[in-house]
Amino acid sequence: MKNLDKLFYPESIAVVGASETIFKWGANITTNILEGGYKGAVYPVTKSKETIYGLKAYPTLRDIEESIDLVIIATPAKSVMDIARDCTTKGIKNVVLVSSGFSEAGEEGTKLEKELIDYAKEHSLDIMGPNTMGMGSMGCSLYGTGAQTRPKPGNISIIAQSGNVGNQMMLWAELQGIGIGKFVGSGNEAVLKCEDYIEYFEQDEHTSVIMIYLEGVDDGRKFTEIAKRTTAKKPIVILKTGRSEVGSMAAQSHTGSMAGSFKVFESMVKQTGITLVKSQNDLLEVSAAFDAFPLPKGNRVGVVTMGGGWGVITADRCAEEGLELPPLPDDIIKELDTMLPPFWSRANPVDLVGEPNSELFMRSIELMAASEAFDAVIFLGVINAFTLAMRPIQSAHKLGAISDEDLDNICSAMDQKQLDALDFILQLMEKYNKPIYPVSLATFAGDEKIYSNNNSKYKLIIYSTPEDATMCLSQQVKYFQYLEKRK
Amino acid sequence: MKNLDKLFYPESIAVVGASETIFKWGANITTNILEGGYKGAVYPVTKSKETIYGLKAYPTLRDIEESIDLVIIATPAKSVMDIARDCTTKGIKNVVLVSSGFSEAGEEGTKLEKELIDYAKEHSLDIMGPNTMGMGSMGCSLYGTGAQTRPKPGNISIIAQSGNVGNQMMLWAELQGIGIGKFVGSGNEAVLKCEDYIEYFEQDEHTSVIMIYLEGVDDGRKFTEIAKRTTAKKPIVILKTGRSEVGSMAAQSHTGSMAGSFKVFESMVKQTGITLVKSQNDLLEVSAAFDAFPLPKGNRVGVVTMGGGWGVITADRCAEEGLELPPLPDDIIKELDTMLPPFWSRANPVDLVGEPNSELFMRSIELMAASEAFDAVIFLGVINAFTLAMRPIQSAHKLGAISDEDLDNICSAMDQKQLDALDFILQLMEKYNKPIYPVSLATFAGDEKIYSNNNSKYKLIIYSTPEDATMCLSQQVKYFQYLEKRK
Repeated sequence: MKNLDKLFYPESIAVVGASETIFKWGANITTNILEGGYKGAVYPVTKSKETIYGLKAYPTLRDIEESIDLVIIATPAKSVMDIARDCTTKGIKNVVLVSSGFSEAGEEGTKLEKELIDYAKEHSLDIMGPNTMGMGSMGCSLYGTGAQTRPKPGNISIIAQSGNVGNQMMLWAELQGIGIGKFVGSGNEAVLKCEDYIEYFEQDEHTSVIMIYLEGVDDGRKFTEIAKRTTAKKPIVILKTGRSEVGSMAAQSHTGSMAGSFKVFESMVKQTGITLVKSQNDLLEVSAAFDAFPLPKGNRVGVVTMGGGWGVITADRCAEEGLELPPLPDDIIKELDTMLPPFWSRANPVDLVGEPNSELFMRSIELMAASEAFDAVIFLGVINAFTLAMRPIQSAHKLGAISDEDLDNICSAMDQKQLDALDFILQLMEKYNKPIYPVSLATFAGDEKIYSNNNSKYKLIIYSTPEDATMCLSQQVKYFQYLEKRK
Repeated sequence: MKNLDKLFYPESIAVVGASETIFKWGANITTNILEGGYKGAVYPVTKSKETIYGLKAYPTLRDIEESIDLVIIATPAKSVMDIARDCTTKGIKNVVLVSSGFSEAGEEGTKLEKELIDYAKEHSLDIMGPNTMGMGSMGCSLYGTGAQTRPKPGNISIIAQSGNVGNQMMLWAELQGIGIGKFVGSGNEAVLKCEDYIEYFEQDEHTSVIMIYLEGVDDGRKFTEIAKRTTAKKPIVILKTGRSEVGSMAAQSHTGSMAGSFKVFESMVKQTGITLVKSQNDLLEVSAAFDAFPLPKGNRVGVVTMGGGWGVITADRCAEEGLELPPLPDDIIKELDTMLPPFWSRANPVDLVGEPNSELFMRSIELMAASEAFDAVIFLGVINAFTLAMRPIQSAHKLGAISDEDLDNICSAMDQKQLDALDFILQLMEKYNKPIYPVSLATFAGDEKIYSNNNSKYKLIIYSTPEDATMCLSQQVKYFQYLEKRK
C-alpha cells in the first residue's frame, strides 16, 4: 500500500508555477491554498517574480532550504521532467501534477508521460495526475484545487476521474453543507491509480465513505480485490460512466482510459459490495446518507406523512426500490386511534391529515422507530412545515391583524419547534439505532441540508423529495444485505 | 364542455368562513387572496365578526347585494348544503369547496357528498373539491390556496389530486421562477373531475402545457378521449401514482379513488400521447421544458461541453434515453480545427478542454445549431462558469494582488459575458427553431432557473445536471415523434 500521509497531511507545500496572473492555474491553486486556511508553510516557485501574494518566491525547488512534503506543479508539460528531478534532489516523494499536455494530448504527450512513469517508479515518486484539477484535504484546511470550491471538513472522501464532475461534487457539497474528507482529482492516473487512493482511504480513520466518479479502470483484478476488502469496512459509492457505446467512446477520448464494457464492469463489481448509482445527484446523496445515518437492519420501512399524496409517492417508490411497507402493528394503531380523527387510514403510510401538530408527529415517529416491525422510518412534511405556516401569518400581519410582537413570538416559537423536532429525531436515532429519514415540505434557497448536534454521532439529511429519500434508503439496505450475506 | 371562465377569471369572490384566526383555512385563503394582489372585489362571509382584515363581513351569501362570480367555502362539512342553496339563490355557479369531512372521512361524509353531487347536478353548480387545498389563477393574481405559494404568472397549468404535492409543485415553481397559469387542487372530484379541467385547459389559450399529479381516474374512457384530443394541441405531463400495490392502497385511502392497475393505465394512455414521468422533480422539469423550448424535429443531439466528464455522462444518458449522438460533420470539424488545440476529440460531444472562452463556446454552439446533422443541442458548463471563475479572482483580491477597481471591472465584464451568452442562445433558438439546452456548471442558492428576454418567444431553462437536461429533451423528442406518427 502506498503511504500517502504526506500527500494528504503535508506540513509544507511548494507550488511550482505559482503566479499572480488571473485565470492561470498557478494563480488559482495558490490563492485557494492561501485563502482556504491552510496552516502549513507555502513556498511559491517561479522565476518570473520575487514575491507571490507577499510570499518570497523561489526560482526552483532547489532554492528552498526547508524540507518540502508536497509539490504541486502547474507549469507546461515540457518543464515537468526537470521539476521531477528537482523533487528527487530535495527528497520530495509527493507530487500533484496539474499540468496537462500528457497522454490526453497526443503522441508526444504520451511519450512524455511514459518517461515520467519510468522516472517515478525508479525514484519512488508518488504522483497524482497529470492533467488533474488538484486535490484537497479538508481536515487540514487544504484546498488545493484550481476551482475554489470549499466544502466543510467531513468524512466523505472523493476520487474523481474528471475535473468538472469532481468540481461540481465539491461545489454541491459546499452549498449543501455536506462535509468532505479528502478530494482527489485523479487525472490521467499515470502513477497513482484509483485503486491506490481507495486502498489509502480504506485504512484512513477520517474517511467513512468513499465516493468515486469512475470512467475506467486499468487493472480490473486489483481494483476488484481492493474494493472487496474495503467494503467490509466502509461503503464505496460509484457513478460509473462509459456505460453506453457513445459514452465509452467519449470516456476514451477524455481520459484515454478504456471504459470497457459496462456489463463486464457490472459483473466484476457484483461480488464486491460496491454501491453503484445512476447520476451525479445520487452519487452525492447516497454518499451523504451512508455518512449521516445508521445502517438499517432490514428493508421494512414505516412512513409517516403530513399529506396523503406524498405517502402514495413514497409507497410506490419503496415498492420499486425493493423496500417493504409492512402493515401497522395493532399497538401502534391503538395508540394513534386516541390522537387521530376517526377516519384515519390505520395503515402504513400513516397519514396525519392536517395542520402541523408537532406532538402528534413526534409521537408517531417514535412509535414507528421503537417498533420491531420496522427497520427504518421516513417522515414527510414536518421540516419547514413551520416555515411555510409562517407565510399566512406574515400576510395577516401585513393586513394589520397581527401585531409586530405577536409575529415575532410566533416566529420564534415556530423556529424552536423545528429545532426541537430535529433534536428529537437525532435522539430517537441514537436510542433505537435505526435510520429516520426526514423529507422537508419545502426547501428554500440557502437552507442547510444537514443537521447535527453534539448529542448524537449521527446526522440528519433533510431531503427535498421522497424519491431521493427512498433511493438513498434502498442503497443503505442493499449494502446491509451485502454485509449480512458476506458474514 | 364545462365553462369554467368565472372560476378562473372571477370579478368577485366571496369567502365563506373567512377568519382572522391564525392557522384556520378561512384565514389562510383570505389573506392569500388579499395579499396576493387580486384586483376584483372580495367579500368575507362570517357570522362571528363585523369586519375581516378591514373589509365588511357578511353573515351569509344572501346578505351580499352585489353579484358574485366565485364562492370559496371553508366551513365545516355540515354547513355546506345550506351554503350551496345560498349559492343557487344568489345565482352563483362556481364554487371552490375547501372543507373536508366528505367521502374521505367515512360513511357519513360519503352520504353528504352524494347529497351535494345530486344538488350540484340539479342546479348546475360547478364545484371544485371538496377536500381541496384551493385554486389559483396567476394571470389575474388570484392566489386562492391555503398555503401561500405564489409562483409568477405563466402558461403551465396544474391539476393536483393531492394538496401537499400540489403545494410543493407551486412552491418549487415559485422558487425556481417557473411561470404557472392556473392551479387546481381537485380534491375529492365530487362534481368537477380531472377530465373537466383538462378539457377547459385544452381550449385555454393561456395554457401551453397541462401538468397533472394523478392518483386515479373515475371515467377512463372519457379521460382517454379528452387527453387524446388535447395532446394534438398541447402536451399533457403526468406523474401517476398508485403504480405499486402498496401505493395503490395508499392512494385509495387518500382520495378514495381506485388507482386501478398501473399496467391498465399505461396501456390506456399509450395511444393518447400523454407524457408520463417518474418523479415530482421530473413533473415540473418536463412541463417547464415544453413551455420554454421549441420542439426538436428528431432525436439527433449535438453536445458541447466545457469538461470531458460531463460529456461522458451526457453521452451515456442520451444513449439510455433513446437520443442519438451522430458524429460531427466534416465542415464543423474543419472550423473547430482552427480554434481548438490539435489534440481535440473531433467527436460529438465536442470537448472544449479549458478556460472559459465565450467566443469559442458560442461559435461551437452555433455550428451545432445551424447544422442539419442535429435536431437539438445540449451545452454544458458555460452558465456560471464566469461566476465560479470569479472565486480565484476574489481570493487574489483579498490577498492584495487585485485592486478594488479591477475586481469590479472584471466582475461586471463576467456578468455581461454571461448575459450576452444567454441572449445569444435565445437568438440561435429563434433563428434555427431548435432547442438548445444549457446545463450550468454551478447552481447557486437563489439563482433564477429560467432566462428570457423580449426578443424571443422561447425561454431558457438552466439545468443543474446533464441528467435533467437529457431526460427533458428525451420527453420532448418522444412527444414530437408521437405527433409525427399521428399525422
